[in-house]
Amino acid sequence: MERLPLERKVLSENDRIAAGLRERFAENDILCLNLISSPGSGKTSLLERTLESFDPSERVAVLTGDIQTENDAKRLARSGFPVKQITTGGTCHLDARMIEKGLAGWNLECIDLLLIENVGNLVCPSSYDLGEAAKVVVFSVTEGEDKPLKYPSIFFKSQLMVLNKIDLLPYVPFDVELAVRNARQIHRDMEIVRTSCQTREGLGDWLSWLARQRKKPRAAAPVS
Amino acid sequence: MERLPLERKVLSENDRIAAGLRERFAENDILCLNLISSPGSGKTSLLERTLESFDPSERVAVLTGDIQTENDAKRLARSGFPVKQITTGGTCHLDARMIEKGLAGWNLECIDLLLIENVGNLVCPSSYDLGEAAKVVVFSVTEGEDKPLKYPSIFFKSQLMVLNKIDLLPYVPFDVELAVRNARQIHRDMEIVRTSCQTREGLGDWLSWLARQRKKPRAAAPVS
Repeated sequence: MERLPLERKVLSENDRIAAGLRERFAENDILCLNLISSPGSGKTSLLERTLESFDPSERVAVLTGDIQTENDAKRLARSGFPVKQITTGGTCHLDARMIEKGLAGWNLECIDLLLIENVGNLVCPSSYDLGEAAKVVVFSVTEGEDKPLKYPSIFFKSQLMVLNKIDLLPYVPFDVELAVRNARQIHRDMEIVRTSCQTREGLGDWLSWLARQRKKPRAAAPVS
Repeated sequence: MERLPLERKVLSENDRIAAGLRERFAENDILCLNLISSPGSGKTSLLERTLESFDPSERVAVLTGDIQTENDAKRLARSGFPVKQITTGGTCHLDARMIEKGLAGWNLECIDLLLIENVGNLVCPSSYDLGEAAKVVVFSVTEGEDKPLKYPSIFFKSQLMVLNKIDLLPYVPFDVELAVRNARQIHRDMEIVRTSCQTREGLGDWLSWLARQRKKPRAAAPVS
């Protein structure tokens, strides 16, 4: 198959641009997080609750990716924070160049936290570095406990798993302990929080994790 | 971007193999369906209920795709019908060559209905023809009404939408009429059934649709 060398070339070009982004984020002391999940796992709702929790003086910005529609940017812009939609027009993931373009026009000196909502897809986004400090996988309890085993790459690469929609646990056949065991089988040290954007249960744990990441000293030099 | 010509070449090679599969399905009077959804929308559960509904004398076989694990083949094999797992090892979709390999060792003369469960991904599988008579998109009520607008390709290409997990409607913010309107905005004539694999509500509508497809005369010549 002649696909592989080209795929490698595309990924190495992406890595080059991502390294440049990471350098800019370090220079401007920006924490950048890349949220990945299946379609409909609740990334946008989690970001809505997150933005609502912030004081308007916080220096937060969001880039949100979708194949089509500006729906998510409209939902998130209600928060008052700067939000930009990246519409991929068919591409199944965000790549570093899209982030570079998405940032154009924003003064990075005025941003402390950049939240990236990837295209809903548990497979392809895991291959594309966006210059983020950490990937976060959002996984909802309606999706079945086996997903970490079936889609290991994203669980392996994520620093945090947000087990979302826990308000639905009484109504779905989902064994939380088994899901956590499966996730730890793929990524032993991954942090895990359990949340519901409907009842707000567990959101404090997510926000505490986020606050801890923001306090961590960030590399002054690029990781390349 | 130099990706596009190669992507075209890969897809045209896939189309060539898919045309060969379609010809073999026609020669053997096999109805082949390609089920596509997000991870965790309930494709495997729908297939379990479907296989349970069949008399053991039915000539049905299943190919089930996943990036990792043989879990789904194990679940489906309990039905007693021939089931084979296709493990893609990282690839985000099934392609026609994988189906060709998956069929090796099966006598197609002994199959009337071939059900293909694609990798859980609402984006990439929609680009790969597997020689099927129809694509079926499974979409669960936990995923949000906007998914047909955000992932138009698969809704446009599917002959049927199975709106699944309707037993969860009392517990999720999901407007069925809006979801149906969004789906029809993308694909006006798509058929739609509403199902729950937990309560079995609506499964009769899905099975009736399936029975109608099986009765349709199939092209004797390949569609190429």
